Amino acid sequence: MTFRPGLNHLYIPGPTNVPETVRMAMNVAQQDQRGPEFGAFVLSILSDLKPIFGTTAGRIMLFPGSGTSAWEAAMVNTLSPGDRVLMARHGQFSALWAKMANDLGLDVELVDLPWGAGAPVNEFARRLGADREGKIKAVFVTHNETATGVTSNVAGVRHALDACFHEALLFVDGVSSIGSIPFLMDDWGVDLAVTGSQKGLMAPAGLGILGVSDKAMAASRSNGMRRSFLKFDDYVIQTETGYFPHTPPTPVLHGLREALNRINREGLDNVFARHARLAAGVRAGVAAWGLETCAEHPSLASNTVTAIRTPAGVDAREVIRVGLMRYNTSFGSGLAQLAGKVFRIGHLGDLNEGMCLTALAVAELSLRAAGARVELGAGVAAAQEIYEQGTPAVALAAE
Amino acid sequence: MTFRPGLNHLYIPGPTNVPETVRMAMNVAQQDQRGPEFGAFVLSILSDLKPIFGTTAGRIMLFPGSGTSAWEAAMVNTLSPGDRVLMARHGQFSALWAKMANDLGLDVELVDLPWGAGAPVNEFARRLGADREGKIKAVFVTHNETATGVTSNVAGVRHALDACFHEALLFVDGVSSIGSIPFLMDDWGVDLAVTGSQKGLMAPAGLGILGVSDKAMAASRSNGMRRSFLKFDDYVIQTETGYFPHTPPTPVLHGLREALNRINREGLDNVFARHARLAAGVRAGVAAWGLETCAEHPSLASNTVTAIRTPAGVDAREVIRVGLMRYNTSFGSGLAQLAGKVFRIGHLGDLNEGMCLTALAVAELSLRAAGARVELGAGVAAAQEIYEQGTPAVALAAE
Amino acid sequence: MTFRPGLNHLYIPGPTNVPETVRMAMNVAQQDQRGPEFGAFVLSILSDLKPIFGTTAGRIMLFPGSGTSAWEAAMVNTLSPGDRVLMARHGQFSALWAKMANDLGLDVELVDLPWGAGAPVNEFARRLGADREGKIKAVFVTHNETATGVTSNVAGVRHALDACFHEALLFVDGVSSIGSIPFLMDDWGVDLAVTGSQKGLMAPAGLGILGVSDKAMAASRSNGMRRSFLKFDDYVIQTETGYFPHTPPTPVLHGLREALNRINREGLDNVFARHARLAAGVRAGVAAWGLETCAEHPSLASNTVTAIRTPAGVDAREVIRVGLMRYNTSFGSGLAQLAGKVFRIGHLGDLNEGMCLTALAVAELSLRAAGARVELGAGVAAAQEIYEQGTPAVALAAE
Amino acid sequence: MTFRPGLNHLYIPGPTNVPETVRMAMNVAQQDQRGPEFGAFVLSILSDLKPIFGTTAGRIMLFPGSGTSAWEAAMVNTLSPGDRVLMARHGQFSALWAKMANDLGLDVELVDLPWGAGAPVNEFARRLGADREGKIKAVFVTHNETATGVTSNVAGVRHALDACFHEALLFVDGVSSIGSIPFLMDDWGVDLAVTGSQKGLMAPAGLGILGVSDKAMAASRSNGMRRSFLKFDDYVIQTETGYFPHTPPTPVLHGLREALNRINREGLDNVFARHARLAAGVRAGVAAWGLETCAEHPSLASNTVTAIRTPAGVDAREVIRVGLMRYNTSFGSGLAQLAGKVFRIGHLGDLNEGMCLTALAVAELSLRAAGARVELGAGVAAAQEIYEQGTPAVALAAE
Repeated sequence: MTFRPGLNHLYIPGPTNVPETVRMAMNVAQQDQRGPEFGAFVLSILSDLKPIFGTTAGRIMLFPGSGTSAWEAAMVNTLSPGDRVLMARHGQFSALWAKMANDLGLDVELVDLPWGAGAPVNEFARRLGADREGKIKAVFVTHNETATGVTSNVAGVRHALDACFHEALLFVDGVSSIGSIPFLMDDWGVDLAVTGSQKGLMAPAGLGILGVSDKAMAASRSNGMRRSFLKFDDYVIQTETGYFPHTPPTPVLHGLREALNRINREGLDNVFARHARLAAGVRAGVAAWGLETCAEHPSLASNTVTAIRTPAGVDAREVIRVGLMRYNTSFGSGLAQLAGKVFRIGHLGDLNEGMCLTALAVAELSLRAAGARVELGAGVAAAQEIYEQGTPAVALAAE
Repeated sequence: MTFRPGLNHLYIPGPTNVPETVRMAMNVAQQDQRGPEFGAFVLSILSDLKPIFGTTAGRIMLFPGSGTSAWEAAMVNTLSPGDRVLMARHGQFSALWAKMANDLGLDVELVDLPWGAGAPVNEFARRLGADREGKIKAVFVTHNETATGVTSNVAGVRHALDACFHEALLFVDGVSSIGSIPFLMDDWGVDLAVTGSQKGLMAPAGLGILGVSDKAMAASRSNGMRRSFLKFDDYVIQTETGYFPHTPPTPVLHGLREALNRINREGLDNVFARHARLAAGVRAGVAAWGLETCAEHPSLASNTVTAIRTPAGVDAREVIRVGLMRYNTSFGSGLAQLAGKVFRIGHLGDLNEGMCLTALAVAELSLRAAGARVELGAGVAAAQEIYEQGTPAVALAAE
Repeated sequence: MTFRPGLNHLYIPGPTNVPETVRMAMNVAQQDQRGPEFGAFVLSILSDLKPIFGTTAGRIMLFPGSGTSAWEAAMVNTLSPGDRVLMARHGQFSALWAKMANDLGLDVELVDLPWGAGAPVNEFARRLGADREGKIKAVFVTHNETATGVTSNVAGVRHALDACFHEALLFVDGVSSIGSIPFLMDDWGVDLAVTGSQKGLMAPAGLGILGVSDKAMAASRSNGMRRSFLKFDDYVIQTETGYFPHTPPTPVLHGLREALNRINREGLDNVFARHARLAAGVRAGVAAWGLETCAEHPSLASNTVTAIRTPAGVDAREVIRVGLMRYNTSFGSGLAQLAGKVFRIGHLGDLNEGMCLTALAVAELSLRAAGARVELGAGVAAAQEIYEQGTPAVALAAE
Repeated sequence: MTFRPGLNHLYIPGPTNVPETVRMAMNVAQQDQRGPEFGAFVLSILSDLKPIFGTTAGRIMLFPGSGTSAWEAAMVNTLSPGDRVLMARHGQFSALWAKMANDLGLDVELVDLPWGAGAPVNEFARRLGADREGKIKAVFVTHNETATGVTSNVAGVRHALDACFHEALLFVDGVSSIGSIPFLMDDWGVDLAVTGSQKGLMAPAGLGILGVSDKAMAASRSNGMRRSFLKFDDYVIQTETGYFPHTPPTPVLHGLREALNRINREGLDNVFARHARLAAGVRAGVAAWGLETCAEHPSLASNTVTAIRTPAGVDAREVIRVGLMRYNTSFGSGLAQLAGKVFRIGHLGDLNEGMCLTALAVAELSLRAAGARVELGAGVAAAQEIYEQGTPAVALAAE
């Protein structure tokens, strides 16, 4: 492979940069995952994850895998073949989740939207209201669509459910939101909240993480889907003892433990304010270039990832290629129908102002190399203005 | 936790000791798993795993998780609900696999045996021969029962299948054998060969690894079990491009890459000879103590783990507790019906003579502290005699 | 300490950023530095350092410590108390070297210059020419004055020596030049060339490195200074066997070995071209701000560090404080008489365009916070223009 | 190099095994050693070293290098050329220290003793008593002669000095004792106490560490030896601010910080008791083999290293070669006049019972391979008996 000196500047929207101290914590010798101290170690992780999920009533379970395994664990443990589920498709990850539901034999009622839209709260409300017989067993929301940089209104969907006294379970994909922007599992009445270790939680991939409400637990006792590897029964024991049913990826657990220490030291509110501030800077930069984001409306703009549309005639893949090959910088690509049209800057996890300014500076060079007319330094200057103003105002505005 | 100075001596039968160079290789910064070099990197791993599985014709797939995810992947991709499968239960891991089959809706025809027996080749042959209508869709063999330290005769089961021209798929659990003792997937006609990254392959847990024959691939195209996360379709693409369908645990992949380098440097035959020699020493030590192993017959004794029965009145849990608390040494415990009756010495992976002698020396002290009458130094001396004779003769004898 | 999220952006002019692979290489278990493979390992390092020093005839010696121990080793092994040495003082490091000469009992003939000047080639030539009796035993040149960002003309000093057939030894401090910009020990007739492991060589501090000519070796056999720890005799054996006289810092050696692998992979000429290009960008940025560098003349500007004068009334210490506290970015401070007047951007070692642009972007924010009137994005844009033009032209121009 | 699987078992008497947590702590990114938090970090190290040196009144200084640099720092800062110093030579390290004194121009009054003797307290007393004019400026004691495994009586030498009201400075080499066995700098009136980071302190080599009494500080203000790199003046500032005069090896500092945390967690008295217990076991093993140690008398036997004489006709180098090549085990060699006659087992630092038993088990195999008649398991059993009895009694007996 070509030799590329200096830091690899990583702005894919996950897996995200692993902080030094997390990497250090992971570099452990093999240990006995049945040893006497291991359970308490895992329980401390579960306990510290709860405020990040915004739950005191729910349980947190750690599955081997990634967000995908937690997606599947949520479904196979609480639903039955043929159950009707209400989903929307407005980006690659909501699309994949719907595909999984289909693969698992659910009856998917799908709302198709432009990629760049948010979850269709009103349309969901309408369909739920019309479902007098309660055939819809679950509603799915992608809190933060990583492919388009869109954050959706989970509270709105809960409101829609409550307004018609609907009993459906509420599934939420928080893979690229939990730990970076506020997530209120209890307040929003989320029954199954999904994330992974490798985004806002700043550890490598290896763990799917699931928040499970009491209602979801109850559903798991009588649902009709076959499962074994991801069966809740074994993970309920985990929530009580800290021991895994199968051999866990211990280095990732040690990394996650240290990542939680970092979040605790910084303070969760400060983490959220920082993400809001950094994101505002990136968006100001994009605006200064005269480019558009994928998000249909500014109110939908995600504080963890920005998907940028390249101008007509400029292949986003070329932007990404130049970024990597010439500047050792990794941007996220446009997925599926957005391929070639969009590149993404992930701005979540262990990040600061300097890193966001690097992203913008290298993006300017890469855009120009790919044929876009972007003024050098323009996006950087716009972001600097935001960052110069400092934290509090920006944070409040963005939240 | 109590401070315990010095090395933790780890003899659980997996996860096994991670070699220094593997740990170094894992300590990587986060990287883009969609980057241009990643596919070739993964393909090199798949390629180097093939001789370890003893296959040229089959495919190797890497699943997030551990051996358990690969167990499930094997079943959900090739069988259908209600399919009859022939299994034996002679230890905790064969028992768990049978439970999984049951959970997944298979019709398990179960042969129950004492824990310490090998796979019942003759009984399997009888039942297969009687199955004129081919109702049995798969036969399962636990190549190395980690709970009892028993290695079974896979070739014998293949012979039984062939003798009656039976078409059943052959599933083999090689979690604690592959990479440590010879495994001949092609020669034995194994259709689904399961292992994990954390035993003979010397990396941390995080990956289930599956060898898949063409016959198994064909079955996967028409079987009737619902699945998504572990669906072969996505992993077939992996075998061709090296890219994962979901976010992979990249540090484990880097560790596995270096572990394979180590195996290549040592030479696979030398790895096998070393395991045979080290195991012979451990067994000689146990014999010198006057204790019995769990394996019913010497011919079944595993070269990767030895399960040792404590004398009447001596609680094996106390042996393990003293080993850890007083000597910072981790032995494997007796599982399920063997709890308190058995402790295990894992001797697989990155191990040498000195490490096995440490295990025996500490076991002597721990056994005595737990009340067993064992002569100090006796087991060590017996093993030393074996090791003094050196590699070749022992290796040949054991193979 | 305050929690500072994200990367620490490090632009001190050494110790420099340690590349990932170097850190990985350093993470070794303790080893026997008398073991049979250790000598060859060290010899490979000595061998690969030779082209970086620009020598085939000289010897390379590795001393515990840093550049300072190599400074002292050079003097105590080749000179005698009372020897007259010709030195110049035009920055903190040339000043400290002169102080060391004085401490060691040498008769220092000192040329004092403004901090920002280069080595006084003409004045040296005049004094050497006037030294008919050869009282001057050595001439000292600081190739790259790290405190002022000034690169001096070593070839010119050699020319001055040759022009009057002067026999003095030529000592050169290449601590912040060797490995980053061309250094031609043999061509320039350097007798003692000093560096450390922690700058262009990208490893942590721990080793002083000395290039020694045959003439210096000859001088070491008859000089009259007392020494023991740093005595050449023991290090001559090192150059022949690779074994250290004292216990060496083995992790640093492993790091250095990998750093040399990196230099070999990139190619030494490419390393030099990269440093030239990156430095040109930084200087363009400084010019765009309307600020001055410490170097008296553009021809003296160093390709490894730029010392920037803050405007009147702006305390450079405040620039540095804001950079660290608010932006997690470390700039170099002004030393001694430059304290408060200068801040420095180190641009040597494992660096790329993105990192230099980060430095400029954060410097802009920090300068403004400290009261300087600097246009946001202006310096970044100027550097981007340089980087957009790419390597070859810039490299040629700068060399 | 030959591939050697499994752990490298390291029993050289330093550098010693680096604990996992120390290695993790060392794996830091480069940092600014002038940054605002660095001083306090270093001061915490100096503070925690004081009880290990047994001093409240003295200062601790950290020099780049190893024990050798601290040896030299002690001499060049407190003595003058031509000063008479009283030394003994009874092993390789006392011999090298005397050679250094000679190299530095001191007038060495040398007492030559068999290698295996302790410091000659009575002879020193006689000479000090006879020195009516106080010509002897310093007395040197090697507290623990690493080459012979002999611990000397420092308190006795202090008593000899006091008995005749002699003013000489007391220099003590505690390189292989400090941190492992009791060292009482204040009680013994030691003026210059030398150690390094790489033995009882469990970090890699890279730092020479010096305890300096007020009397030694006073001497440093008026002595007449030229020095610069190791000059106390700069290190006095270090003791007050924590900042280094030269670029320090920061990873080693981070390692040392964690090593001190470990000592604090275990408790210094427990560390000493553990070393006493482990050493007693090793010596019991040697006795069981019928072999002799280098120490002339049991009362001199060191608790940190045992030097074992091979039987007539058995080359100790062959023992060492077999240990490494066949069993991946590193023993210490016999140095200088002991080459081929002695091999050494270092039992200091991060060690436990299992590790000492491994050493004995492998030594038995290696001795036999080299031609010695040693009964397999005999040494192991003798040590096991000691270890079985547990800590307190042994510890008291040995102290």
